[in-house]
Amino acid sequence: MSAAASSAAAQPLQDAEQLIDSVETFIFDCDGVIWKGDKLIDGVPQTLDMLRSKGKRLVFVTNNSTKSRKQYGKKFETLGLDVSEEEIFASSFAAAAYLASINFPKDKKVYVIGEDGILKELELAGFQYLGGPGDGEKKIELKPGYRMEHDKDVGAVVVGFDRYFNYYKVQYGTLCVRENPGCLFIATNRDAVTHLTDAQEWAGGGSMVGALCGSTQREPLVVGKPSTFMMDYLANKFGILKSQICMVGDRLDTDILFGQNGGCKTLLVLSGVTSLSMLQSPKNTIQPDFYTNKISDFLSLKTAAV
Amino acid sequence: MSAAASSAAAQPLQDAEQLIDSVETFIFDCDGVIWKGDKLIDGVPQTLDMLRSKGKRLVFVTNNSTKSRKQYGKKFETLGLDVSEEEIFASSFAAAAYLASINFPKDKKVYVIGEDGILKELELAGFQYLGGPGDGEKKIELKPGYRMEHDKDVGAVVVGFDRYFNYYKVQYGTLCVRENPGCLFIATNRDAVTHLTDAQEWAGGGSMVGALCGSTQREPLVVGKPSTFMMDYLANKFGILKSQICMVGDRLDTDILFGQNGGCKTLLVLSGVTSLSMLQSPKNTIQPDFYTNKISDFLSLKTAAV
Repeated sequence: MSAAASSAAAQPLQDAEQLIDSVETFIFDCDGVIWKGDKLIDGVPQTLDMLRSKGKRLVFVTNNSTKSRKQYGKKFETLGLDVSEEEIFASSFAAAAYLASINFPKDKKVYVIGEDGILKELELAGFQYLGGPGDGEKKIELKPGYRMEHDKDVGAVVVGFDRYFNYYKVQYGTLCVRENPGCLFIATNRDAVTHLTDAQEWAGGGSMVGALCGSTQREPLVVGKPSTFMMDYLANKFGILKSQICMVGDRLDTDILFGQNGGCKTLLVLSGVTSLSMLQSPKNTIQPDFYTNKISDFLSLKTAAV
Repeated sequence: MSAAASSAAAQPLQDAEQLIDSVETFIFDCDGVIWKGDKLIDGVPQTLDMLRSKGKRLVFVTNNSTKSRKQYGKKFETLGLDVSEEEIFASSFAAAAYLASINFPKDKKVYVIGEDGILKELELAGFQYLGGPGDGEKKIELKPGYRMEHDKDVGAVVVGFDRYFNYYKVQYGTLCVRENPGCLFIATNRDAVTHLTDAQEWAGGGSMVGALCGSTQREPLVVGKPSTFMMDYLANKFGILKSQICMVGDRLDTDILFGQNGGCKTLLVLSGVTSLSMLQSPKNTIQPDFYTNKISDFLSLKTAAV
């Protein structure tokens, strides 16, 4: 079935049992794998139940930073899925977890270009913050001699998707990064597009991050996929060997690369943004170990005769 | 005086007459060379008069795209400088001139992320446009199933500095670049910072351009400095040899690089954003031919004994 003759080309998943037996943990991307917009993808509850019944650990990872873990938990609940907060790793949580991992000082502050999920996770982790959606209404006044004051105690700027993005935030974040000595520049993710609604692809966190890169001439530290921060965090927290993890996602440049960067097995599902022709295009350089239509194929793909 | 021993290191300007005699045209950057914010730099009128009396062609080039040539003309007039519109090349004009140079179809439209100067120049050149400051008030509504419609006749997105920047514009421009076949992505400039007021550096056009790069994963065609489009345009229009031009500016990575990319002589003035220690820092890789404090040094630096 694979168009490319290379030995590195992804194989269609034929023997789901063998894959399931070979790992201890499945990490699932959410959008395009578990749901699409607000609709559950067919067969997901039964598939997750089957994996749990086989004793597999399930983890749900998303680059979407607009919600906190708790808010994501409600989304799972609404869709009828029994998933606990501790199984959910959103890039909003990753930003707070990263700051905690480096012992970011509690007397310093975080300036946020992003939405409520980041604010909630920073608060839970005990960090002081400013910015967020509230700065979406602020404007600059360009009178001669005017300067924007900024808080010299800001020690990190966290940037994620922000539908309330404006010039005030760009300038405030830029001042912190450029003028506060040692100020960190952290991106939840650099996704080009995201699925705010199921009807269209929307400009993603990559655009807010790109704006700050343009004005600061600095590159951010990325905590979401495909950076390995969340994978390292998960492996440490649960004491899992990365070779015992299978990363399942619908995007090559975030999910599959995330799994490969972490040294995991990788499975691409075609239920999201990537089509078979995109996977097999000569332009694509990222090949997962396996691909299949959707995760519920786990229920029907039994050991095949080789 | 030069800290670096390399033969490529910039030399302090000692013999202004020799430099003046060796070229036919001077291209001046404006902010930091002619004025700072709203204040004329000392000795500028006398210097320009002296150069004109020697028969030199004077050209004024700026990456600022917020004003049209006509609007810039008024700024020169207000400051008491006798400069005609035809001597002024702003990146707003460059965007329109570029579209004209490639015979951009008049039945196609241009979507503008930027300010009034770009709209005015597009109008003068006879192009249809939409966007600009007016879209600064627009918001998106993220109801399930919602999609933003965009004009399929947009054949170019022009991005420049925009204090009214918002998510609506990012998404509109992204849709045009990603979904309209052959749609051009043009940047007036990628300056990290700009001098909106004289009290502070402000996030520049590089941040608006960076946002679109992040969401489209495309690189723009840049018409402002340091790209050579304006230099080529000037050389063609006036029939000047580039070796007969001296580019005078206060920024290494735009002005001096612009001159060097064009094969011109280059003079850095220290009356703007670059200090002598920045020029002589081991981190700086861009060395002009000469440097001096301000352009009025032309009046006092006579032929020196070598």
